[in-house]
Amino acid sequence: MKEIKKHFPFYDNESDLIYFDSSATSLKIKEVIDAEIKYLNENGTNPHAVDYKKGFEALEIINQARSLTKEFINAKKAEEIIFTSGTTHSINLLANGLKKIINKDDEILVTELEHSANLLPWISLANSVGAKVKKIELNKDFTINIESLKNQLNKKTKLVTFASISNTVGAKNNIKLITKVIKEFNNNIIVHIDAAQSIGHMKSDVTDWNIDFMSWSAHKMYGPFGVGFLYGKYHLLNDLEPLFYGGGMSLKIEEDLVKYTLATLPEKLEGGTPNISAIAGVIESIKFINSIGLNEIENYEVNLKKYFNKKVKENNLENHITFYNLDVESSIILFNVKGVNPQDITNFLDHKYNILVRGGANCARRIEGVIKTKIAIRASFGINNDKAEIDKFIEALKNTNSFLDVLF
Amino acid sequence: MKEIKKHFPFYDNESDLIYFDSSATSLKIKEVIDAEIKYLNENGTNPHAVDYKKGFEALEIINQARSLTKEFINAKKAEEIIFTSGTTHSINLLANGLKKIINKDDEILVTELEHSANLLPWISLANSVGAKVKKIELNKDFTINIESLKNQLNKKTKLVTFASISNTVGAKNNIKLITKVIKEFNNNIIVHIDAAQSIGHMKSDVTDWNIDFMSWSAHKMYGPFGVGFLYGKYHLLNDLEPLFYGGGMSLKIEEDLVKYTLATLPEKLEGGTPNISAIAGVIESIKFINSIGLNEIENYEVNLKKYFNKKVKENNLENHITFYNLDVESSIILFNVKGVNPQDITNFLDHKYNILVRGGANCARRIEGVIKTKIAIRASFGINNDKAEIDKFIEALKNTNSFLDVLF
Repeated sequence: MKEIKKHFPFYDNESDLIYFDSSATSLKIKEVIDAEIKYLNENGTNPHAVDYKKGFEALEIINQARSLTKEFINAKKAEEIIFTSGTTHSINLLANGLKKIINKDDEILVTELEHSANLLPWISLANSVGAKVKKIELNKDFTINIESLKNQLNKKTKLVTFASISNTVGAKNNIKLITKVIKEFNNNIIVHIDAAQSIGHMKSDVTDWNIDFMSWSAHKMYGPFGVGFLYGKYHLLNDLEPLFYGGGMSLKIEEDLVKYTLATLPEKLEGGTPNISAIAGVIESIKFINSIGLNEIENYEVNLKKYFNKKVKENNLENHITFYNLDVESSIILFNVKGVNPQDITNFLDHKYNILVRGGANCARRIEGVIKTKIAIRASFGINNDKAEIDKFIEALKNTNSFLDVLF
Repeated sequence: MKEIKKHFPFYDNESDLIYFDSSATSLKIKEVIDAEIKYLNENGTNPHAVDYKKGFEALEIINQARSLTKEFINAKKAEEIIFTSGTTHSINLLANGLKKIINKDDEILVTELEHSANLLPWISLANSVGAKVKKIELNKDFTINIESLKNQLNKKTKLVTFASISNTVGAKNNIKLITKVIKEFNNNIIVHIDAAQSIGHMKSDVTDWNIDFMSWSAHKMYGPFGVGFLYGKYHLLNDLEPLFYGGGMSLKIEEDLVKYTLATLPEKLEGGTPNISAIAGVIESIKFINSIGLNEIENYEVNLKKYFNKKVKENNLENHITFYNLDVESSIILFNVKGVNPQDITNFLDHKYNILVRGGANCARRIEGVIKTKIAIRASFGINNDKAEIDKFIEALKNTNSFLDVLF
């Protein structure tokens, strides 16, 4: 994967930076940036403006991006892909859109590992309609415990929502099995996947998984900021109330200012001017990932972590560092240096070693229920990383042994 | 303004194109595009990642954009500016956010000229809480009739929402006077302005106007796609329910999965990863507009229309063309060629003359209540246009006289 770095302009000026924050956002590839620039420089019109060739070209870009996305996740129809502004938008569109479907005393199942974006919209929905959000217990490896899930499922259960891969401990759930258990209990229970952490790191197959909805962002797949996606099975997606009422989705408004007619999917759920320059980038993002292959990407990243683990043992780093998820096969490492505040370590790694990692709750506000600490340091890999960077990371981590001596 | 065209890469390759669709989206200037590229090439990190310098730099961009925007519209605090994904998002955030404030039988006043994005969110809100959307009558020049407004105001009136400048007939409302009339009747009535069509075409002063909320998009001010703004007076903004629950706005979620603590403004209403590369472009968009001056821009564009009007008279175009808003001082022209479908004309202008204009309802779904036709052709100017383009437009319009002969 040595040639891979050349795709990332990030390294052009500052080749010594080690970016270990792909879980927050992946670095952008040149092809994506070029596609955005090309659209802005050479077109720049509104894709709703199909009165002239430039507007048609804009619309064609959206159609192509939708079609590629459909193939990318193996959906059945392009109309099942809704463009949003990001994962958070997608999940809020879904939660808000289900307001008439989720009723008083209904139950929504989540895990305590969920990102705020996959907890708060459901808590807010539940609070507003009088439903309940309940948690499914986890296995020691942080994956969903199937027995706990079976115990939680009952006739009040309306929806189960969980991350394909957790954004903190990197646990990868067996989506197909979990969905099978749920659907066998009651086929009408809605299954939603927060795929923000998996979309650029493992193969998604919504048809094989048999899930109902999935949310993710382009900026976590080496793509542009400002674009997200909501996948939904057509008949379920079609039942959602829109979150954005506006242009493009409105066909008719009656004189009484009460009745109106909306467009069909996908426009129905895409009110407003699309983020067209970014959507042009989405096409290149998918092509890039496809050119490498998601299975290859996953293997590569998991092997980086295995290499890291080996080095941890060799250097006895566990003496002064608590690792929370060493055994989890993923591209994310979660740890704390004993006795030191995480954000002191992240600053230290940034300033002294040019290593960019995150510290804090990483937006998983209930993680303390799982790993008994509210805050930790997260290093997350992408295909832009390599073993040489891991070596430097290990050297830096060794020096956190006498942290205060080193810093002052 | 001849030098202005050099700012727009759109003309670099296709200098013969005449872009008269600034109302749909303005063309993008080089400085905006360059700022977006620079961010994507040289940084690309998540502005929530304040654990390293690059993340801090990203956050600084957002702070600077927010601060510049505050000055641009003369708000009192930077925290009164909320970044959204566009005008549609902003208005839906507002309408949804007022759900607990607008109650059964309350009244919301609008005009029939509003864009779908300033009608449907209110109709949807009204339908969901049992409130009513009622219309204010217009003057012959399509501005709000103050007497009708006074007659409509009553103790049930909770909100008045209207476009500063209509996106079809270009009528410019006297926001300060209208707001004064409303506030004198009842200071608690909320005034919201849809500023999508004015933000890049005339000076906004939310403090002088004394309005409560304002919504607009960056892509209508020579800026990036995918960024919008909601301005609100601090105490009113602070009362809004969020539309996007997610990361960045969540401080704490209790173990009961019921109670939670949100961040303060502005983060409270900005859940999810910001569209940071586009926000970098916003800074350049504002600087560019400020460097020319909005009063100068407005004068320039209004004079273009005056020049157009003069040519219309000189060439007796009114014989075969119905102009709906010739007398309105604005940068928008709305017309129909008698006996010909608007979209035949827009295609004709595009294919034969490289003139890009819009045809249809232009997303103003109740316009038939105002100009007695559902569909018309819209030409809208920006500072990128000039008199030579108007001359070509007039020539083209002359040839719509014998439309069928010309085309076949």
